[in-house]
Amino acid sequence: MERCKNVLTFLGFDNEYKDSKIVVFGSPFDGTTSFRPGTRFASSIMRNESYGLETYSPYLDKDLNDIAVFDAGDLEFPFGNTKKVLEMIYSFTEDIVEDDKIPVMIGGEHLVTLPAVEAVYKKYKDLYILHFDAHTDLREDYMGEKLSHATVIRRIWDFLGDDRIYQFGIRSGEKEEFEWAKEHTKLTKFTCSGLKEVVKEIGDAPVYITIDLDILDPSVFPGTGTIEPGGISFHDMMEVIDNIKGLNIVGADIVELSPHYDTSGVSTAVACKILRELVLAIDKETVI
Amino acid sequence: MERCKNVLTFLGFDNEYKDSKIVVFGSPFDGTTSFRPGTRFASSIMRNESYGLETYSPYLDKDLNDIAVFDAGDLEFPFGNTKKVLEMIYSFTEDIVEDDKIPVMIGGEHLVTLPAVEAVYKKYKDLYILHFDAHTDLREDYMGEKLSHATVIRRIWDFLGDDRIYQFGIRSGEKEEFEWAKEHTKLTKFTCSGLKEVVKEIGDAPVYITIDLDILDPSVFPGTGTIEPGGISFHDMMEVIDNIKGLNIVGADIVELSPHYDTSGVSTAVACKILRELVLAIDKETVI
Amino acid sequence: MERCKNVLTFLGFDNEYKDSKIVVFGSPFDGTTSFRPGTRFASSIMRNESYGLETYSPYLDKDLNDIAVFDAGDLEFPFGNTKKVLEMIYSFTEDIVEDDKIPVMIGGEHLVTLPAVEAVYKKYKDLYILHFDAHTDLREDYMGEKLSHATVIRRIWDFLGDDRIYQFGIRSGEKEEFEWAKEHTKLTKFTCSGLKEVVKEIGDAPVYITIDLDILDPSVFPGTGTIEPGGISFHDMMEVIDNIKGLNIVGADIVELSPHYDTSGVSTAVACKILRELVLAIDKETVI
Amino acid sequence: MERCKNVLTFLGFDNEYKDSKIVVFGSPFDGTTSFRPGTRFASSIMRNESYGLETYSPYLDKDLNDIAVFDAGDLEFPFGNTKKVLEMIYSFTEDIVEDDKIPVMIGGEHLVTLPAVEAVYKKYKDLYILHFDAHTDLREDYMGEKLSHATVIRRIWDFLGDDRIYQFGIRSGEKEEFEWAKEHTKLTKFTCSGLKEVVKEIGDAPVYITIDLDILDPSVFPGTGTIEPGGISFHDMMEVIDNIKGLNIVGADIVELSPHYDTSGVSTAVACKILRELVLAIDKETVI
Amino acid sequence: MERCKNVLTFLGFDNEYKDSKIVVFGSPFDGTTSFRPGTRFASSIMRNESYGLETYSPYLDKDLNDIAVFDAGDLEFPFGNTKKVLEMIYSFTEDIVEDDKIPVMIGGEHLVTLPAVEAVYKKYKDLYILHFDAHTDLREDYMGEKLSHATVIRRIWDFLGDDRIYQFGIRSGEKEEFEWAKEHTKLTKFTCSGLKEVVKEIGDAPVYITIDLDILDPSVFPGTGTIEPGGISFHDMMEVIDNIKGLNIVGADIVELSPHYDTSGVSTAVACKILRELVLAIDKETVI
Amino acid sequence: MERCKNVLTFLGFDNEYKDSKIVVFGSPFDGTTSFRPGTRFASSIMRNESYGLETYSPYLDKDLNDIAVFDAGDLEFPFGNTKKVLEMIYSFTEDIVEDDKIPVMIGGEHLVTLPAVEAVYKKYKDLYILHFDAHTDLREDYMGEKLSHATVIRRIWDFLGDDRIYQFGIRSGEKEEFEWAKEHTKLTKFTCSGLKEVVKEIGDAPVYITIDLDILDPSVFPGTGTIEPGGISFHDMMEVIDNIKGLNIVGADIVELSPHYDTSGVSTAVACKILRELVLAIDKETVI
Repeated sequence: MERCKNVLTFLGFDNEYKDSKIVVFGSPFDGTTSFRPGTRFASSIMRNESYGLETYSPYLDKDLNDIAVFDAGDLEFPFGNTKKVLEMIYSFTEDIVEDDKIPVMIGGEHLVTLPAVEAVYKKYKDLYILHFDAHTDLREDYMGEKLSHATVIRRIWDFLGDDRIYQFGIRSGEKEEFEWAKEHTKLTKFTCSGLKEVVKEIGDAPVYITIDLDILDPSVFPGTGTIEPGGISFHDMMEVIDNIKGLNIVGADIVELSPHYDTSGVSTAVACKILRELVLAIDKETVI
Repeated sequence: MERCKNVLTFLGFDNEYKDSKIVVFGSPFDGTTSFRPGTRFASSIMRNESYGLETYSPYLDKDLNDIAVFDAGDLEFPFGNTKKVLEMIYSFTEDIVEDDKIPVMIGGEHLVTLPAVEAVYKKYKDLYILHFDAHTDLREDYMGEKLSHATVIRRIWDFLGDDRIYQFGIRSGEKEEFEWAKEHTKLTKFTCSGLKEVVKEIGDAPVYITIDLDILDPSVFPGTGTIEPGGISFHDMMEVIDNIKGLNIVGADIVELSPHYDTSGVSTAVACKILRELVLAIDKETVI
Repeated sequence: MERCKNVLTFLGFDNEYKDSKIVVFGSPFDGTTSFRPGTRFASSIMRNESYGLETYSPYLDKDLNDIAVFDAGDLEFPFGNTKKVLEMIYSFTEDIVEDDKIPVMIGGEHLVTLPAVEAVYKKYKDLYILHFDAHTDLREDYMGEKLSHATVIRRIWDFLGDDRIYQFGIRSGEKEEFEWAKEHTKLTKFTCSGLKEVVKEIGDAPVYITIDLDILDPSVFPGTGTIEPGGISFHDMMEVIDNIKGLNIVGADIVELSPHYDTSGVSTAVACKILRELVLAIDKETVI
Repeated sequence: MERCKNVLTFLGFDNEYKDSKIVVFGSPFDGTTSFRPGTRFASSIMRNESYGLETYSPYLDKDLNDIAVFDAGDLEFPFGNTKKVLEMIYSFTEDIVEDDKIPVMIGGEHLVTLPAVEAVYKKYKDLYILHFDAHTDLREDYMGEKLSHATVIRRIWDFLGDDRIYQFGIRSGEKEEFEWAKEHTKLTKFTCSGLKEVVKEIGDAPVYITIDLDILDPSVFPGTGTIEPGGISFHDMMEVIDNIKGLNIVGADIVELSPHYDTSGVSTAVACKILRELVLAIDKETVI
Repeated sequence: MERCKNVLTFLGFDNEYKDSKIVVFGSPFDGTTSFRPGTRFASSIMRNESYGLETYSPYLDKDLNDIAVFDAGDLEFPFGNTKKVLEMIYSFTEDIVEDDKIPVMIGGEHLVTLPAVEAVYKKYKDLYILHFDAHTDLREDYMGEKLSHATVIRRIWDFLGDDRIYQFGIRSGEKEEFEWAKEHTKLTKFTCSGLKEVVKEIGDAPVYITIDLDILDPSVFPGTGTIEPGGISFHDMMEVIDNIKGLNIVGADIVELSPHYDTSGVSTAVACKILRELVLAIDKETVI
Repeated sequence: MERCKNVLTFLGFDNEYKDSKIVVFGSPFDGTTSFRPGTRFASSIMRNESYGLETYSPYLDKDLNDIAVFDAGDLEFPFGNTKKVLEMIYSFTEDIVEDDKIPVMIGGEHLVTLPAVEAVYKKYKDLYILHFDAHTDLREDYMGEKLSHATVIRRIWDFLGDDRIYQFGIRSGEKEEFEWAKEHTKLTKFTCSGLKEVVKEIGDAPVYITIDLDILDPSVFPGTGTIEPGGISFHDMMEVIDNIKGLNIVGADIVELSPHYDTSGVSTAVACKILRELVLAIDKETVI
């Protein structure tokens, strides 16, 4: 008798790296979180809880069993060293992109998006960002720090520049951030209305999707660091997925699940289902 | 001085058996639950928490104090013996039906619906089922088992046959289940739209209502075994009740409340209110 | 080196008393709560958690930093002595009103509204009440007690009389209460529809706003004493605020947050944001 | 077929009133609780959870099935009216004592002990009190109130006088209370040492036992209003029971379980087991 | 670039099967649990949480990194079919024993011990059982069922017979069970005193260790199905490990962790550390 | 009428800075926490919950009302910048020490102890450290980082050198750490035995006390980042306080309370009481 070790991947992401177009990995970092930390636990808990999911999506009429996704596990970060963490994410994402695969990252806090987008941008200079979030994330600095979950989109703008970033669902920020956005990003307050038109404008250009899950209303997603009542519903999010499924998505992430703050498990289930739908929407190669 | 023992019934269900048209009882069984168990606690916790309810419904403008309902308490099951449990439910329901009363069962997991429907069907051969749920529950077997919360509607179909089962709110299942449903049941995805027409079609025929509470969105009903984001709202459920109130309901159940997974108590309160409305909707004899 | 004591106020309410038009204070009383007590903790937890809020409202495009509000802290009550508690609230509110300021009270249970309205009424005899709540609160007595969270609006009617009280969002009560309301208050069931017209009718007359937070659906506000499924959404509440912002508000309160029953923290965050919006809506003096 | 209503009594307390020497009842009052309220839920949750207990005690080698105990359910109190609540407890206890039975009350907060002791004292003028508690409960008043959980033993002293009250396990109070105790009660700090001698001294005299469960260390009993680290262990409590089993106990209570503050359920299980042991220790009539 | 799948084993159990003397596996079954279910989650949560452990034990001065242990993952059971589950455990354990390795099983409820002991007994006819538990587990049947967590030791006695089973820490059961034990097992009430002598008596004979974690006091181990106050401390358990480390252990298990009932995570941490110590104590081959 | 702002200090620490010998402050930093973060919430929650404490200690027979302590509130740190945080703590502590006062810091994770000790050491070159902890904290680096909660005592040793550091209660670490300790610190495993002798040896020399609260058993202190079963009891900790009360304490801290992981509130209450006792033990100037 011979036996294999216990392999734990997100439900349905059980292919080999070389066979997969999409590579999922976790970035369990929450070092700049200003309120409730704990997004470091998101990816491992999502893997465990994903067994409650079906692989089939009645929304998209597609099945994870029909597509090739590799789950690379989690990066292991040094605690307390923000700079090194960002370098590790950059390097890991760069490898995936160079292998001509699509990185899908599970945060962690929103700052992890910065190095991932940088690595994708290295290859795709005409990159667009679709940013779904409750918060603007456009501060120049936060308590003196340039690198923060509250500055991440501003830092991405530093190299992407104007007219590349679309923001949806925004319902919290400083007055100055909303002012700044008027000139530099395309910001939609409260909802995701207008997304359909944006998708048309973008056409075939490469797109990075970053979903801060706190765009969702806390009624259905309480498990996050900064609670912002007034968000979109899960149905709205399914519509977002439906709208973006035709885009040329070259990278994506979902961030800011802090699972310990929701003992009911709903937030984790929500994150798992959105990940399933997102990956199914990114996939372009399924032959059914 | 003489004193009576402590009687605990669901709020307003304090009539005698012989005087009551409707008989409520609990089936605290969760033996085939595949994810989070605990529906065994639903009925006893609902009785305790029902004291926070008003007996009067502003939705239906009816009052529990005006109708005659008997609360028979909970069945006591042997743990680990699925077959015996189903026999006990069958036999108990059969007694109620033979006494020309209407059984309203509080689950437990969804498998408890199977023997209850069988017992009702014994008397009403032209029975219809209205099935409200997040899940298809149409598998032929689950991990090799024919009797499971995931196969319960398929097992009911085994004796009811085609065109008797209407499914609403379904948002999760295997691809094969959705395919199978196309030929054998009338399945509505995601919502309860079309219910009004179905009610008209059914007319005076006897109907059994089975409500898997996970049809509700987990934002308002997190306390259940398998969390499925994307469900209907409580308002939608009140509309369902309003639509079915004219039907000839000969049996009903509400299942899958797992109260320990919702420490806020909201799920239990939701289940209690739905039970109040359901019983008020079933009642046809009130003279106000 | 000299150092100051640790001051804790609700976010942005850091002005001096003499400079402030609006005075916020807490009334941590839950002595007549019939189900789950704990509203005594609301005001102190809201102060702590308010640091997760932005001072800027994208709804109203106003900023707490631009208006003058004083946070007077919490009243200290003797436990178990309902009458004395009510006297203390009356006297405290009276002082504020006499200083020509606007009291905004954080409950506590709903009974605290009675003395606050009495003190405001002493000055404004033509006062209107806008009452937002899940419950009628119109009982003549509750288990024999005249002073109760379940009788508070009836007690207010005792001195205000007919045609002065508007009730919105009501979805629970005894049949008799709904009947009584038909003749004495203007009650809207389930929603806040019609509010816009009411605002017009009231015009410049002085208004007291009392928001029992359980008007909200428990999906987004589980942290309260009596859970009533079927409430309004947070978006609906933001619309309420938008509608009342033109009124001549001379007093207000938000009551019935019981924070310990919501370990996720969502209910507290909801209460904090509503308080921010309410105060911004009351303010008439901002020069931006 | 005829069926009976659902009876809910504490495990093994299923005898009739007339046959029982011991009468258990609940006093769900927490109106003067100064920190975390919720002892109102203790008795009903204990009844529900008692089904996890065995009726047999390996400590005392006695079985609840062999003794006659009646569970009278809970008193129903008006909220917010402390005086009326105390009168109701007095009257109920008086009836039991007059019927020559032994009252065993489940609190509620500690103030409920006052009327119960008064009613017992009416019959037994040479009554002793054994008081097990973390707190002295000897204040003359608390925030101006004479009737409070913090003054209850002082109020009992008002009619019992010196040398009648033994206090054990005390580890919290004002300096003045400890000073006062030196002259008026027999107070043992931190532990229950010396209990054996006290039992001998008391001999056959009638004794009332009041157990504030917060005498236990919060490691094993977190579910209470005021947490006081440094208490006795469950083993210590079993020794207490063993020591008092020979006494002529004419009344008893266990108070201050606040079950919602312990989601693990341990505190409730502890309270249930102590109640089982206490009742078995009080019983003198078992013939085995 | 090539990448491996995410392997998840209990901390330090990362060897290959063929190299390992000890094989750990999970049996996530809780089908006969009579109170709070959930032991099905124990093994997977223990793997996740084991990363908080050190591999080095200061108790035994040994390190998991120095010994060879294989973690085989969890068995996958059909829900609701008790008999088939037991067959699967039997067959899996049998394979391990035939390969001359030592099975260490993580439950699940206590019934999983039955087939594991049967498989070990097949090879070692002179087997002894050391049973650590709060409960006797000696019922002939439980609610009519012969196979139950409450009958497991009785079922083991059916084939092992008298004088083979030592029970420690027992503090709950029916009177009849304690009586029965006097003739058929060697039962120690409340504590583990006498263990040292038992170890001497057993000498080199093969021993199976079964640890029902509810032997621990609920203060340190609340996360279990049936809470029994009055258990042993963690220090006591470390002494148990120290005492048994010289025995010829040919099989072992730790059962009855129900992690969802302890949101603090303490129970899982306790189970993880006991597993570390148990495995280090079983190991006889380390050369340091 | 004039009114003051809401001041929130730890119970009884309500003196002015200039009048106080002892200065308490919070360092809400948890940036290098490797498992469960959240110690950032400790100081603010302790202030809120301290109102459940008595100011009088029956252990030491002293009262906080009789001594002069100033509560300076919390330092405000930039998130994600470990180095700057340490500088801020150093500078703040330095000021206190230069004013000839005694700093008592509330963590935060254990790394905050490093700059506090450095600032105290600047003045007292013959400083001793009494280190109470579950963990050695003696790693040279942790995942490559020199500054970490797991290296803090090693970093202190870097400037204090051999024979200055006493460690008590240690029950977890790498084998290498225990080996290293044999030559460089005086480490006591598991308990605080020998403390009395150490106190004698130290005599009048200046001492810094650092208490990592995870030295306590998780039964009474679950609210911490890394749970280590097998710790000391609260009684043991009171003995520690009793033993050190004669020392010349020139600085102290208590760290590693992570309050969100203990929803019962016990851990916070434990931390509050230890802080009360520690401050009373440090005080040398009370004239009673």
